[in-house]
Amino acid sequence: MNIKPQKGMQEYLPDAAAKRDLLMNTILETYTSCGFTRIYTPAVESAENLDKSDGGDNLNLIFKILKRGDKLEAALAKTPVDEKELSDLGLRYDLTLPLSRYYANNRNELPSPFKCIQIDKVYRAERPQRGRLREFVQCDIDILGSDSICCEIELISVTAKALGKIGIGKFFVRVNDRRILRGTLRTMGFPEESLDTVCVTFDKLDKIGADGVAAELNDKGMPAEAVASLSELISKESITLDDMAAYCKDDAAEAIASLKTIIDTSNQLSDEYDVVFDPSLVRGQGYYTGTVFEVASEKFGGTVAGGGRYDGLIGRFTGEQIPAVGFSIGFERIFSIVTENNIELSGSRPRAAILYKAEDILEAIRESEKLEGEYDVTLMLVTNPKKADKFYSRAKGAGYDNIIKLNL
Amino acid sequence: MNIKPQKGMQEYLPDAAAKRDLLMNTILETYTSCGFTRIYTPAVESAENLDKSDGGDNLNLIFKILKRGDKLEAALAKTPVDEKELSDLGLRYDLTLPLSRYYANNRNELPSPFKCIQIDKVYRAERPQRGRLREFVQCDIDILGSDSICCEIELISVTAKALGKIGIGKFFVRVNDRRILRGTLRTMGFPEESLDTVCVTFDKLDKIGADGVAAELNDKGMPAEAVASLSELISKESITLDDMAAYCKDDAAEAIASLKTIIDTSNQLSDEYDVVFDPSLVRGQGYYTGTVFEVASEKFGGTVAGGGRYDGLIGRFTGEQIPAVGFSIGFERIFSIVTENNIELSGSRPRAAILYKAEDILEAIRESEKLEGEYDVTLMLVTNPKKADKFYSRAKGAGYDNIIKLNL
Repeated sequence: MNIKPQKGMQEYLPDAAAKRDLLMNTILETYTSCGFTRIYTPAVESAENLDKSDGGDNLNLIFKILKRGDKLEAALAKTPVDEKELSDLGLRYDLTLPLSRYYANNRNELPSPFKCIQIDKVYRAERPQRGRLREFVQCDIDILGSDSICCEIELISVTAKALGKIGIGKFFVRVNDRRILRGTLRTMGFPEESLDTVCVTFDKLDKIGADGVAAELNDKGMPAEAVASLSELISKESITLDDMAAYCKDDAAEAIASLKTIIDTSNQLSDEYDVVFDPSLVRGQGYYTGTVFEVASEKFGGTVAGGGRYDGLIGRFTGEQIPAVGFSIGFERIFSIVTENNIELSGSRPRAAILYKAEDILEAIRESEKLEGEYDVTLMLVTNPKKADKFYSRAKGAGYDNIIKLNL
Repeated sequence: MNIKPQKGMQEYLPDAAAKRDLLMNTILETYTSCGFTRIYTPAVESAENLDKSDGGDNLNLIFKILKRGDKLEAALAKTPVDEKELSDLGLRYDLTLPLSRYYANNRNELPSPFKCIQIDKVYRAERPQRGRLREFVQCDIDILGSDSICCEIELISVTAKALGKIGIGKFFVRVNDRRILRGTLRTMGFPEESLDTVCVTFDKLDKIGADGVAAELNDKGMPAEAVASLSELISKESITLDDMAAYCKDDAAEAIASLKTIIDTSNQLSDEYDVVFDPSLVRGQGYYTGTVFEVASEKFGGTVAGGGRYDGLIGRFTGEQIPAVGFSIGFERIFSIVTENNIELSGSRPRAAILYKAEDILEAIRESEKLEGEYDVTLMLVTNPKKADKFYSRAKGAGYDNIIKLNL
C-alpha cells in the first residue's frame, strides 16, 4: 500500500496542525467579531454547475467524480465512451460558486445583505509545486445583495484586520475595477465579446510577463493593434487612476469615481497598510464584473488574499441580478509565511503530563481531571515502573510544562 | 444551473453552522484538554489504498475520482474500457485508513504512543436517508503504538467526557472483543478464514435482524449448523461475559479477562454512563481485531459513537505490527439530536448592530472597533436614511443585543 499522501495532498504533523488551527481561529474570530456569520457548503458540486461557472483556467483543474452503479454502466456501454458522461459530480475549485448556488437556494431565509464566512477546503488538479497544493484551505468573506461600495470598504477593512492580527507585517492592498480595464480594452480596439478572455490572459502578467500576454492574445486571434496598445500600457512605469480616465471611454467614469472613494476611505482606516490602484490587476476568474482586489505582503512577497465583485454569478442560478462581492485569504500562503518565518501565534495552553502505572489508570484519570482547567493533560503509561526515570526524561524532552509522577 | 445541493450533500444556514462549530469546538477542546493532539490528513487517498483497506461494506460506497489528462486518455483507449482503470484516487470513507497511512509515513517524528485527534469530513455514496449523508463529519481519537488496555479505558473516559459536555443525557457504552466473538464463532464451526466476513454480516444484526443475518450467512455459503448455533445465541435474552467463557475456546480467556477490567474500571469513572458487555456488538469494519465499542444514547436512541482496536491495519503499510485503538463520535447523529431537541450549547457572543449612512462608513468602522471586544458587530448600511426606523425595526427583529444608530 502507498505510505505517502497523494501528489499535492498535504498532511500535517501535530505542531503544524496546531498552528493551522490557531491561524484559522484568528481569521474566523476576526470575521465573526465584524458581524459576518459562518456557513457550510459541500465540497462536492454537480459537474454541470462547475463546468458552467466561468472559473477561468480553474475549469481545467477540476477533480471529477466517477458515476456509480447503473449510470456508470450506461456511460461505459457506449462506443466510444464519452468522457463527459463518466462524471456527474466534481470537487469545488473555489468557495464562490458553491456560495452563489447556496444563496440562490436559501435567499428567502437569509438576511439582505448577507455577510458570510466560508473557511473550508477546495481542490484543484494543479501541477504540484512549492506553495501550490491540490487540496487547500480558503478563507472567504462575502457580502451578497448590496451594490454599495461600502461593501468593498468593509471587506478591505475586515480582511486587513485579520491579516494584521496574524502579524505578517506591512502589506499592500491593490485594487482595480474590471469596468475600467474593459473600458480601456474597448478603446484599444479589442472586440466587446472578447473582453472576458482578454482579461483572463491579462491576469497572467505576473506569471508570463508582457511578452507572454501579447503572445497568448495573438494566439487567441486578437487584433494586432489592440495587442500593441495593451503592450505599451503594460510597459509604463506607473499609471494613476487619473491617467486612466484618458485611456477609457466615458462609461467607466463612474467606476473611476467609485474606485477613488474606495481607495481614499480605506487609506484613512489604518497606517498598517496602503491601498493602491493597480491598473494591471485583473484576477483570474471570469465571473468578476467590477472591483477586484489583491493583498501583497511587502515583507514576504506574493499574493496573500484576493477577491472582487461578481454581480452576475448568482443571477445564473436565480435569473435575477444579485450584486455580490467577496474577499478570500489564501490560507496556504499565510500558513507558509507563518511557518517559514517562525511567526508566533498566541492561543496555545500549557501542557501537563501524568506518569502512571497500568493498575493506577483510574487514579490517573481522576488526577488529570483536577488539572484540566489549567492544562492540557496527557496521561503517560509507564509500561515498566523500574524505568520511570526514563519516562520522566522523555516527557521532559517533549516540553511539558508540568510533569507529575503518580505512585512512581 | 442546479440550485439545490447534490444528493446527500448537506449545506448549513448560519444558525445551524454556528451550532456545528460550537459542537465541534466542545468536542475538540475536550479531546485537547485530555492531551490528544490534532492532525490533518487529506480527504483524497489513492484508489489502491482505499480498495485494499478492509473497510467492509464501505468499500462499495467510495466516491472515485476520474483520472485526468494522458492517463484518462490511455484508460479510455482500451476496448472495452475497464472501470477500474478510470480512477486513481478516491474520497476517504473514514478517518482510520488515512490515519494508518499517516502514522506509517511519519512514525519517526511522532511520540509513542501517539494520541491524536481527527475532526474532519468523510464521504460515502450511501443511498440518502434520514440521518445518512454522503458528506459528513467524524470526530476521532486514536492511540497508536500501545497494546495496553489502559488505552481502551482512556478512550472511553475521554469520549464519554465529550458527550457529557454536549449534554445529550444518559448513555450506555457497549463493549465487546472480537477475539471473544471469533472464539465463539470458531467453536460454532465457522471456518477460520471466514470469520472476518461472518463478523461483517453479524454487525448488521440491528439493521437486518436475526433472520437477515442467518440469510446473509447462508448466502455466503457458511455451514448450516454453525449458522443455526449463532441464531440460537442471538435469540437469547441476555448473556454475561461469564456465560461467554463457555461458548468460546481457551484462546479468548485473556480477552475475557481484559474486557472485564475495562468494564469494571470504566464503570468506576462516572455515574453519568454505564459500560456494559454486548456479545452481539461487532462494528462493520473488517479491520478491527480486539475490543470494539459503541455508545448508545438512552434518551434519543441510536448509536452516537463507535470504535475499536485495529492492531493489524498500520502493519499493512509498515510490515511491522503496530497496535492501535480508536473511538469516533458520529458528529451528524449528535448534531441532529442537539438540533431536534433544542439542546442549548454555550459559547456564542452577544451581537451588536451599527446602522449608518454610506458617507459615514469610516466612522461606522471606527465605532465598530470600539465594540469588538464585547460584541460581534454587524455594520448595517441604511440605504435610505428616511427609512432609518424601518432598518432599526429589522435589526430589532433579527435579535441583536445592542443596536446603535449612527448620525441617523
